[in-house]
Amino acid sequence: MKIGILGGGQLGRMLIQSALKYDDEFYTLDPASDAPCNNISHFTQGNFNDFETVLNFGKDKDVVTIEIEHVNADALAELEKQGIKVVPNAAIIKTIQQKILQKEFYKTYDIPSPEFQVVWNSDEKIMMPLPFVQKMNTGGYDGKGVQVIRTEEDYQDVWKEASVIESLVDIDKELSVIVARNESGETKTFPVTEMVADPKLNLLDFNICPVFLSEDIQKQIDSITEKFLNAVNSPGLFAIELFLDKEGKIWVNETAPRLHNSGHQSQEGNANSQFEQMYRVVKNLPLADTDAFGYSGMLNLVGAEGHAGKVIYEGMDDVLKLPKTYIHLYGKTETKPGRKMGHINVLADTREELMEKLVKVKSMVRVIAE
Amino acid sequence: MKIGILGGGQLGRMLIQSALKYDDEFYTLDPASDAPCNNISHFTQGNFNDFETVLNFGKDKDVVTIEIEHVNADALAELEKQGIKVVPNAAIIKTIQQKILQKEFYKTYDIPSPEFQVVWNSDEKIMMPLPFVQKMNTGGYDGKGVQVIRTEEDYQDVWKEASVIESLVDIDKELSVIVARNESGETKTFPVTEMVADPKLNLLDFNICPVFLSEDIQKQIDSITEKFLNAVNSPGLFAIELFLDKEGKIWVNETAPRLHNSGHQSQEGNANSQFEQMYRVVKNLPLADTDAFGYSGMLNLVGAEGHAGKVIYEGMDDVLKLPKTYIHLYGKTETKPGRKMGHINVLADTREELMEKLVKVKSMVRVIAE
Repeated sequence: MKIGILGGGQLGRMLIQSALKYDDEFYTLDPASDAPCNNISHFTQGNFNDFETVLNFGKDKDVVTIEIEHVNADALAELEKQGIKVVPNAAIIKTIQQKILQKEFYKTYDIPSPEFQVVWNSDEKIMMPLPFVQKMNTGGYDGKGVQVIRTEEDYQDVWKEASVIESLVDIDKELSVIVARNESGETKTFPVTEMVADPKLNLLDFNICPVFLSEDIQKQIDSITEKFLNAVNSPGLFAIELFLDKEGKIWVNETAPRLHNSGHQSQEGNANSQFEQMYRVVKNLPLADTDAFGYSGMLNLVGAEGHAGKVIYEGMDDVLKLPKTYIHLYGKTETKPGRKMGHINVLADTREELMEKLVKVKSMVRVIAE
Repeated sequence: MKIGILGGGQLGRMLIQSALKYDDEFYTLDPASDAPCNNISHFTQGNFNDFETVLNFGKDKDVVTIEIEHVNADALAELEKQGIKVVPNAAIIKTIQQKILQKEFYKTYDIPSPEFQVVWNSDEKIMMPLPFVQKMNTGGYDGKGVQVIRTEEDYQDVWKEASVIESLVDIDKELSVIVARNESGETKTFPVTEMVADPKLNLLDFNICPVFLSEDIQKQIDSITEKFLNAVNSPGLFAIELFLDKEGKIWVNETAPRLHNSGHQSQEGNANSQFEQMYRVVKNLPLADTDAFGYSGMLNLVGAEGHAGKVIYEGMDDVLKLPKTYIHLYGKTETKPGRKMGHINVLADTREELMEKLVKVKSMVRVIAE
């Protein structure tokens, strides 16, 4: 089968890597000639935000999917009209692409998400009491396009563009759950993972699984995933990012209509990875079992501050000596501060051992430039 | 790093798949334009038995390795002279390529292997009592080039060419152990696996791990792997195929200087797979831990009798529904009787559960032509 992917980054690369155990041909579209998918798929250099480029790329494929949501969804809708299968479908990509539509979607389907106000232009008065979160309607990614307004003085920083103003959740834990639905309507959920964020770069630091949750909290999450998978009306693999607040209530922060950083530990930690599951969704195959094997965790390998240029992974030979520790690099030759260059997965028998190993590994490696 | 592989078959494909989590460039050489490695590496169509072809292929690589042993070892020796790293080195490939040299190697290093007589030409009298095994000196592969001579009448079938005449072992079990050694001299051994062969096609049927062995038998195996890894004087990953005879003695049947079918269950069954280990050997990195996770087993997907042409995998959708069951296809479009098209790995908590699952899966699938 000819599978086209919009985006040629690490998510696409790991999807293709995983799917090499089946017999399909992968095609990728990315503006960067040195994109991670370039030398492992039929690669087209081009802009996935351009209508004609996406249309041309997709028209001879059996199925088109995405590894980034900021793509031209109108072109995907046109491809659907022409009879090309698009996973997830253009409508849900469009909804999730725009924070305003995403929030309305949660409201419509009774999925708990922080209270919000829509601001379409700079004249609108913000009614939300301080502190609040502002999320740009479009273009947010990896923590960009999101800010917290805490004080009266911060008001001057408010972006004067279409955005969502959300009440600030008093966060106890950040959780994530990867869910999948195939065209036949079968659904499957990965075990919940917990994220520990780096406050500076706003990229995940550690992502660990499983998480012990009270029966009540697990029930709230199950209800959310069920409602979401019923509402979504599209095959796809989705990451639902959750907040657990200090009163024990679960809120949906946001959803990604694709493979997600918070699912990377599934590569060695679960019976099947998010990449295997995505492949099955794309081909409408029976979904894979997602059981966790013991404890697993992930840390991102992010370009160090002050380093830009040809990448060197300092300390990696020592990491290779550690048992049940798995390095995943993304085939990127150039590092820059904050760039996701790879990740490391770790397996352990207890949560304590897991945290200890993650902290140790993090202290051993640095992503620097030559 | 530029890594060149002689051979572009499934072993190379799975090595490249596994190594996609690092940042290297793979180059493959194979006579078949539709070789499994073609679209996932820089591919050169050419004959790996031809001196000039191998020399030209290897001369601009950082390291050259093999995924099949029937290659031009003289060209590899010449590459070594020119300063190209070859893994495993040309000398050991040459030794293992020729059954006669392989047997002499075992004798020299006191590695127990069935008694033998060398026959260089058709005039030599065979001294070995019946029944015996005849192995052609060169060209044997997947059970080809090996025959058992049982009776006086069978004598007419004896091949009139350079070969090894071996005493027939009264086999209780066929075992295999994958061992690795890097350039720094570090060594690592995978847990022993047990093979159940299909008497007709002489390809493995099931390959299971771990195997319960008495302390004495395990000691014999440890002694063999230790002697082998000391003797081999080359970095490399090797499969040592063993016979356990009915009196509890272990014999080396033969050795392959490469990734091996009997190590495939390591993909999901062990902390790291033979492919990860091979990658580390090629790059002289610290070797990976090889611990087994519970029970694992593998069955080959082999082209059914009477079917040649474009392949169909019958029953695969049902296999995809089974938990902890992993399909690995090799990207081959054409099937023929006995051709290895893929394999399926299975995980289980007990040996009984494992055997039950393997038998069930085997009954579910068939590799046929359109």
